[in-house]
Amino acid sequence: MKQEHVQSFPMSAFSSRSAPSAGKAFDRWALARIQASVPGARLRFVLWDGFELVPPAGPAVATIIFRNRRALFSWVWDPELNFGEAYMFGAVEIRGDLVQALQEVYRGWPEVRRGRRRAARERNGVDTARNNVHHHYDLGNDFYRLWLDREMVYTCAYFPTPASSLEEAQTAKLDRVCRKLQLRPGERVVEAGCGWGALALFMARQYGVNVQAFNVSTEQIAYARRRAAEEGLADRVQFVEDDYRNARGRYDVFVSVGMLEHVGLAEYTTLGRMIDRSLTEHGRGLLHFIGRNQAMPLNAWIRKRIFPGAYTPTLAEVFDRVIEPQDLSVLDVENLRLHYAKTLEHWSDRFEANAGQVASMFDETFVRAWRLYLSGSQAAFASGCMQLFQVLFARGRSNEIPWTRESAAR
Amino acid sequence: MKQEHVQSFPMSAFSSRSAPSAGKAFDRWALARIQASVPGARLRFVLWDGFELVPPAGPAVATIIFRNRRALFSWVWDPELNFGEAYMFGAVEIRGDLVQALQEVYRGWPEVRRGRRRAARERNGVDTARNNVHHHYDLGNDFYRLWLDREMVYTCAYFPTPASSLEEAQTAKLDRVCRKLQLRPGERVVEAGCGWGALALFMARQYGVNVQAFNVSTEQIAYARRRAAEEGLADRVQFVEDDYRNARGRYDVFVSVGMLEHVGLAEYTTLGRMIDRSLTEHGRGLLHFIGRNQAMPLNAWIRKRIFPGAYTPTLAEVFDRVIEPQDLSVLDVENLRLHYAKTLEHWSDRFEANAGQVASMFDETFVRAWRLYLSGSQAAFASGCMQLFQVLFARGRSNEIPWTRESAAR
Repeated sequence: MKQEHVQSFPMSAFSSRSAPSAGKAFDRWALARIQASVPGARLRFVLWDGFELVPPAGPAVATIIFRNRRALFSWVWDPELNFGEAYMFGAVEIRGDLVQALQEVYRGWPEVRRGRRRAARERNGVDTARNNVHHHYDLGNDFYRLWLDREMVYTCAYFPTPASSLEEAQTAKLDRVCRKLQLRPGERVVEAGCGWGALALFMARQYGVNVQAFNVSTEQIAYARRRAAEEGLADRVQFVEDDYRNARGRYDVFVSVGMLEHVGLAEYTTLGRMIDRSLTEHGRGLLHFIGRNQAMPLNAWIRKRIFPGAYTPTLAEVFDRVIEPQDLSVLDVENLRLHYAKTLEHWSDRFEANAGQVASMFDETFVRAWRLYLSGSQAAFASGCMQLFQVLFARGRSNEIPWTRESAAR
Repeated sequence: MKQEHVQSFPMSAFSSRSAPSAGKAFDRWALARIQASVPGARLRFVLWDGFELVPPAGPAVATIIFRNRRALFSWVWDPELNFGEAYMFGAVEIRGDLVQALQEVYRGWPEVRRGRRRAARERNGVDTARNNVHHHYDLGNDFYRLWLDREMVYTCAYFPTPASSLEEAQTAKLDRVCRKLQLRPGERVVEAGCGWGALALFMARQYGVNVQAFNVSTEQIAYARRRAAEEGLADRVQFVEDDYRNARGRYDVFVSVGMLEHVGLAEYTTLGRMIDRSLTEHGRGLLHFIGRNQAMPLNAWIRKRIFPGAYTPTLAEVFDRVIEPQDLSVLDVENLRLHYAKTLEHWSDRFEANAGQVASMFDETFVRAWRLYLSGSQAAFASGCMQLFQVLFARGRSNEIPWTRESAAR
């Protein structure tokens, strides 16, 4: 009964038959529902007419302002999608600390989402994958240059201490990946999804390996190739503008940092087979990806506006579909979620410092969308909604594995 | 057709109608089948009448001798179970290095087993669990004292270097577990399956925590309580002779070392719920267990003679059933399988040095069974058939987690 009532709301709310006073009552009822959906959230909710609800206990850390009825009811209808939509188009405003406000919201949401254990069903074939990647990564190198580190690393950094600089932390991350993989000079490495090439160039430069790096983003590959040429590394790093699934060589090492999120559950066994086909008898590999504690779809707004086709898996999903069918042996898993919150904090700071320039390159709606994406992601990692996993693995029968974690780190 | 033929063999082989020469041909055919089932194994196979098959290439590392026809055909019928049975009762002998011989056998077996991805269906209720534990752990403390370290730690050790002593390595393991868990003085710890109490006593003594340690083995609990009293730790360590599922307290830390193998897949969600019920808001935990790269039942002979009701899971099985349903967050996974091979090497050496005494406590069949179990386990870890996982986790929403692995280790 109650459920039905809610679902018919968005239609009736805009119908001309609603008397103003009934409308006002409905508005306040809807606001109360929203407050109840984030129990205990330290947020003040304000309507366009000044009506407000304060937190049940203690002071508010931020204020959420609805500029119109559409924003209010669309939140009730589908909060995950429409909160983002309303914020992006300026129909919802947040005063106070955006990240803290989003954390308050996210802390309340999981209860609602916990029941929704349905697997993502999208199939990211080669063409879909290319379109999805183009949507995000081909926004222009000039845009990303405004807020990424100078190496253009667009994945979670590793901060030796919380006070480390972003530049230092990205270098530490690249080096940590190489040390986990115990790269030796002359080895062959395949990288699936190489971004602007920072890791591939780092591996070749610092560890003397030969890299074949795959990426379907035209802009990123062009940038990476220029860098390889400038640094005299073009003979050791080959940037291939192609889907990683088309890799046909044999390699000592497989590495993929921040690509699994774009693969989609349905293609995990294909990824596993690609790894199995690519690795030598004593091969090893590393997957670095955004994950979850519990299986659930990625936030609907993020999928619509930021990362079409993306899915953030649990470890069980990755092990069950990518690792175990190929008799690969998991050697080491590390969760770096607080490091991703810190990375996003740096990105947000740089983004805000250049928000005017971003607005002139795109528009204000774009700025608000990206502000929400960066701050929302930071809130998700800080509140434990999102995880960042590095999974190191080797051939199941290979004994060429480090004796201890500490000996590998040297 | 071929399949049927093989399955009818064990009956016909013993029938009086078999002519001697036909019997001899069958014997040789069976031996050839056994050799073919472990392709490439560097083993010499010898029959009771002196007939032998040498490795297809290179010299043999060991010789496997069949003392009678029953041993031969029962191997063909069910190698996993009957190889162990025949060895235990002296109908199969192995000359040369036992561990190396078993590694050669295990390397060949996985191909056969890979198709058998059926889950273990045994339900280890409280009573079954108690009987299973009694079968193995109540063989007498005097027996285990002959070949374990002086702390009586009957789980994988951590060898800082391969040359470390067993005593040093067991202490290093206990300390590694405590450091991963970041134990703080005064915290409450629940231990599920505490063996002879070494970890519980170590945690209380070295880290000042209060421990409630559960075990259903009467002999182990009695031993552990005596030690607690002798060391003046009885006020801080409570050894409870009960199933861990009956724990009803709230704890800062859950720890279980070498018990999950006895839980059985069907009880994993119960274990997960017990962890969820037991942990405080910022609680964390560690599971240390023997695992697999691919789901398959534990060796049939080991289940029959050594560990009834045991199952060694993959990480996906543990995460899917124990960890993820409770919104626990995996922080760290370490695979120590080579350390278990080394641990078992030490145990075997000590066991062999005391084999005469073991025989006088039990009999020669017992000695051979345990020789096979210890050497077979060593071979399984050394060849990658078995894994040893330490999984560290925390409440999904808790931010009281170490900033880095290195900062936790201090």
